[in-house]
Amino acid sequence: MDPSAEKDLIREGDNPDITAERRRATFPVGKMAAFIHGGDEKLQRRREILAFVESVPAFQDPIPVEFMSREERCDNNARKAVAMTDNTDAIDGSDFFGEGMYYQSLIMGRDLHAMSLHYVMFVPTLQGQTDDEQLDEWLTLAIARGILGTYAQTELGHGTNLSRLETTATYDPKTEEFVLNSPTVTAAKWWPGSLGKSSNYAVVVAQLYTRGKCHGPHPFIVQLRDEETHLPLQGIRLGDIGPKFGINGGDNGYLLFDNLRIPRRNMLMRYSKVLPDGEYVAPKHSKLGYGTMVFVRSVMIRDQAMQLAAAATIAIRYSAVRRQGEMNPENGEVQILDYQTQQYRLLPQLAKALVFLFAASEVRDLYLQVTEQLTTGNTELLPELHALSSGLKSVVSWEVAQGIEQCRMACGGHGYSHASGLPEAYGYAVGGCTYEGENIVMLLQVARFLMKVADNVQSGSPKLADIAAYIGQKPRKRSAFVSGESTPLRTLVADFEHIARQQVFAAFTLLSANQKRMAPELAWNATSVELCRASRLHVKTNLVKTYMRRVAQCQDPQLKPVLEDLGRLFALDALTHHASALKTDGYLSDAQFDAMKQGLYCLLQKLRPNAVALVDSLDFCDRELHSVLGRRDGNVYPALLQWAQQSQLNKTEVLPTFEKYLGPMMKDARSKL
Amino acid sequence: MDPSAEKDLIREGDNPDITAERRRATFPVGKMAAFIHGGDEKLQRRREILAFVESVPAFQDPIPVEFMSREERCDNNARKAVAMTDNTDAIDGSDFFGEGMYYQSLIMGRDLHAMSLHYVMFVPTLQGQTDDEQLDEWLTLAIARGILGTYAQTELGHGTNLSRLETTATYDPKTEEFVLNSPTVTAAKWWPGSLGKSSNYAVVVAQLYTRGKCHGPHPFIVQLRDEETHLPLQGIRLGDIGPKFGINGGDNGYLLFDNLRIPRRNMLMRYSKVLPDGEYVAPKHSKLGYGTMVFVRSVMIRDQAMQLAAAATIAIRYSAVRRQGEMNPENGEVQILDYQTQQYRLLPQLAKALVFLFAASEVRDLYLQVTEQLTTGNTELLPELHALSSGLKSVVSWEVAQGIEQCRMACGGHGYSHASGLPEAYGYAVGGCTYEGENIVMLLQVARFLMKVADNVQSGSPKLADIAAYIGQKPRKRSAFVSGESTPLRTLVADFEHIARQQVFAAFTLLSANQKRMAPELAWNATSVELCRASRLHVKTNLVKTYMRRVAQCQDPQLKPVLEDLGRLFALDALTHHASALKTDGYLSDAQFDAMKQGLYCLLQKLRPNAVALVDSLDFCDRELHSVLGRRDGNVYPALLQWAQQSQLNKTEVLPTFEKYLGPMMKDARSKL
Repeated sequence: MDPSAEKDLIREGDNPDITAERRRATFPVGKMAAFIHGGDEKLQRRREILAFVESVPAFQDPIPVEFMSREERCDNNARKAVAMTDNTDAIDGSDFFGEGMYYQSLIMGRDLHAMSLHYVMFVPTLQGQTDDEQLDEWLTLAIARGILGTYAQTELGHGTNLSRLETTATYDPKTEEFVLNSPTVTAAKWWPGSLGKSSNYAVVVAQLYTRGKCHGPHPFIVQLRDEETHLPLQGIRLGDIGPKFGINGGDNGYLLFDNLRIPRRNMLMRYSKVLPDGEYVAPKHSKLGYGTMVFVRSVMIRDQAMQLAAAATIAIRYSAVRRQGEMNPENGEVQILDYQTQQYRLLPQLAKALVFLFAASEVRDLYLQVTEQLTTGNTELLPELHALSSGLKSVVSWEVAQGIEQCRMACGGHGYSHASGLPEAYGYAVGGCTYEGENIVMLLQVARFLMKVADNVQSGSPKLADIAAYIGQKPRKRSAFVSGESTPLRTLVADFEHIARQQVFAAFTLLSANQKRMAPELAWNATSVELCRASRLHVKTNLVKTYMRRVAQCQDPQLKPVLEDLGRLFALDALTHHASALKTDGYLSDAQFDAMKQGLYCLLQKLRPNAVALVDSLDFCDRELHSVLGRRDGNVYPALLQWAQQSQLNKTEVLPTFEKYLGPMMKDARSKL
Repeated sequence: MDPSAEKDLIREGDNPDITAERRRATFPVGKMAAFIHGGDEKLQRRREILAFVESVPAFQDPIPVEFMSREERCDNNARKAVAMTDNTDAIDGSDFFGEGMYYQSLIMGRDLHAMSLHYVMFVPTLQGQTDDEQLDEWLTLAIARGILGTYAQTELGHGTNLSRLETTATYDPKTEEFVLNSPTVTAAKWWPGSLGKSSNYAVVVAQLYTRGKCHGPHPFIVQLRDEETHLPLQGIRLGDIGPKFGINGGDNGYLLFDNLRIPRRNMLMRYSKVLPDGEYVAPKHSKLGYGTMVFVRSVMIRDQAMQLAAAATIAIRYSAVRRQGEMNPENGEVQILDYQTQQYRLLPQLAKALVFLFAASEVRDLYLQVTEQLTTGNTELLPELHALSSGLKSVVSWEVAQGIEQCRMACGGHGYSHASGLPEAYGYAVGGCTYEGENIVMLLQVARFLMKVADNVQSGSPKLADIAAYIGQKPRKRSAFVSGESTPLRTLVADFEHIARQQVFAAFTLLSANQKRMAPELAWNATSVELCRASRLHVKTNLVKTYMRRVAQCQDPQLKPVLEDLGRLFALDALTHHASALKTDGYLSDAQFDAMKQGLYCLLQKLRPNAVALVDSLDFCDRELHSVLGRRDGNVYPALLQWAQQSQLNKTEVLPTFEKYLGPMMKDARSKL
């Protein structure tokens, strides 16, 4: 069947409330899903991949993962990971952002596993950093799964500031070996995924010393465990770092070296080299090491967007079947989705999810373009990709985390249960605010770029990257905003550009003033809250523009108005949260601001009837959502009861606590009365 | 030793960075701690209670709770709960908000246990709702711990809207019994703490039917499990509802009745009665049932405030010992607490914690006053306590949850580990946004009160409660704000009052306009986002005022300026987040707003040197903080390594995953290369 011909997801036996929602949609779900996921063919492939995953016994969980202990979870994940990589023929591996990520998320859920870092960091690092001979030696072995690796950079006492990593790799020309050492406790490698128990190899980043001189951090390939017994090698101490907020099926690890010797050729030598006699050869280009980092951030943005999309799906479907409170006593209790406060909590999350997904597609396209260019040595687009992915990573991960929590709380008490899937989604997603570049650090990197732009503009030589061209444009005096519900998106974009530009120059002015009073780094620090604000507004401005470009490609008269309304909702929601900036210098009047808020409330009402159809269009299957509240069929209550009965504590009617503590206590008390 | 004479918490062997912080404080920690906790005597009692708790072997955890499975955790908690209640002589039980809560949090940490609901809900309900004969029969037994009870009201399909609870209690005059029944799955009692496995009794709220007529929800005491065997009685199905976001040592439960018969006198009859012949006797007063609810909310506000205080302590201490990045290369890496962005994240949380703690004290005092009055039948203050506690519960729980997450993320990667204690604190605290009255519902209750006030003011008959008197005052045209760092707190209070008043009337105007176009409940719904805003601003205004009143009582010249600065920080942080409201009608100019922000940044710098001493003054011991990052001694890195080694996955060097899955996979691949 042509997937986009699918009218909706109505089946017999569904909760009547959710069926009624699906019947009132103004567009066919299949068409919207095809637009979101890139066409009918992509949608068809999703169906095929799902059917395959459902059919392989090794991909199934014996019990839902939330009832497993950490040990059970790691075991289950390792088992599934091997089966998953045994069966990669089922997908088009070259479409990692599409088929690859979908396949993995269907099988692994919101978790990492024994082989996550092998594929996301170890293999890409080998691809990017080995010379040809090393590539032959290591890459084939790694891709064949003959060894399992991870990437060990962050240390117990050192994250963001790479130059202060403490692990040393000291070259010994006598034996032509490097000696790896952890001189302090804070030098312990800490956090690498799959390091604790699963990997037997790692790329280790250490300070390179040769001929008595430090040349800064460099990557080395290091065997950690015996290939046959899996016991740690002599000179190595390592283990799991313990339970975390989320992702507990992964064995993030620690690693300490006690003067471990590795051959000279275990240094990854594509860019820098140490010759047998100890001579250090510096790299020709310094920017070439970015590859893996921007890859991971690009993947993250899509992954994060999907988490928010899933949370919005769960909460909106549940809000359609949950009835509570009365507005008109004759009509019984109302669907909680009819409350304005509930719409205000949920519908902007749906809009954000879509805006972020479209931004993720753009980053993916840019990433693929850059990768293509890099094969010919062209690094032109790399800085742009780096700036774009850093800023997006920061804004998206924060908004996603906040949004998931809004979705969770909007489900009331049931959102607090692991049955909802939402605590797990939050724990998983919120990590993204910290790993792969802490968000504040990322925003300040973007701010460096913006301050250069501001400097160029002010000094009258505006050679600006496309992404920042608006900063050089002359500001408008007044917002063209009239009324919210049908404002053209370009008016809202102009408002975004205005406040982003204004904040960029406000920060620039403050920075300049501070620079007159103090040392550059202190001035930067004293401006940093304002700098972060500038970066956030810049990123949000670009998010709205990206969304507009994507929606402009839609020609379908059923889809286009709904997509435009979602864009308006995203923009108005964000703009009303930045109203103070809009009101500066009278750019937006009080009356215009009131109209913005009223426009927002009207949009909530207008989008309300399509809410369920819109989340249906995100095309999550029940397996991927993994949520009793988000079930397609809306039959949440019997399913909650069934889910609860699997609780760890329900294996016996009476817990040992009764016989050991509570029973004797009560009996004793009763005997004395 | 006189506790307030304590200079600081410096000990030999401490991390030198944290010692240096303590040395630069401008006030003695002991004095500040005494002010915060209500005097030297209270502080002394904290020392004694801590020493006692440390001395009792039964109170100790065999391993840190975060390494336990749910089963182990429930077991450990039940054991400690019995020991805790065996030893209540160690504390002054009449000082529940002080000694009681401290004692419990030292022993139980951030969790519930088998007897939590017994003490927080079951016993207070019996105290409030039984007639004299029932009191004799049940209360003595419950207080002696001869039975364990909980409070079963919420159902799978019903929370906020009590009138639609589905569980029925139908009176049968033939046998003089009530028949309890759960007619549907959605009628299942769901969520009550300690219901799943621990309790053998419960107060059950059910729709009372007699002589064919429904009289609405009423409380009944119901035996759930056999006293000797602890097996569920016939006609009862119950169990644990499964894992949750937090509080997993508690056995929240479900409960279904299949026509269970209980004696007529098991209906709690202090207010309503059913006579033997089935005649229903209605209560004289309808408001008397509030007691338990306001008690729980009052406790919650303090409990929540303490969670944020703990999180701020953890993150600020860690930020003093964590060094990362450079400002002046000669000085090595900087303490991350020196970053403006870090101060901006953390110091407002500290200020909030203190503001909330002082508000909690005021609620406690009001609660005790009301309880005193109720014994003489005087219910005058009850509505005020109810409104105050609902609003505070909502604003405090939300701000606390947000604040804990800011603290957690400010600790970077280590904040994501359970070693930090912060994921657990968040999971524990954020539940408070939902239970005991969902936050949005609470805000809308406060809004009902505010709309009445606005109506009174506009109709010229302003008989206003103290708490809302400012709403009747004439608004100022312009803010008196000049510069932030030393603005008198009363100027900031005036600004708060202005925006709260303005929003109350804005919501009132919108509501009136909507009422002309639609039915009252629809108009209310169409105004509800604006109504919630009014409630939040009203509560925040009162928080600032409460804080001011408390600080006005401080006469110590070393403490007072610091406390005032914290109040300013709280106010400026909140006001700058409501800048759009301040700018309406030109009340605050752009220049004043810029001055506010600069004032805020100056305050951060000014408070920075006292940051560690301030969190020291909150008087958490390491046991209560339960955080490797928050340790008094600042020696976090060796402690992290030691903590990690206890991980569940580190019991063996090699996990079974190697032999079962990963080993064969790698061996097979290597053999083929």
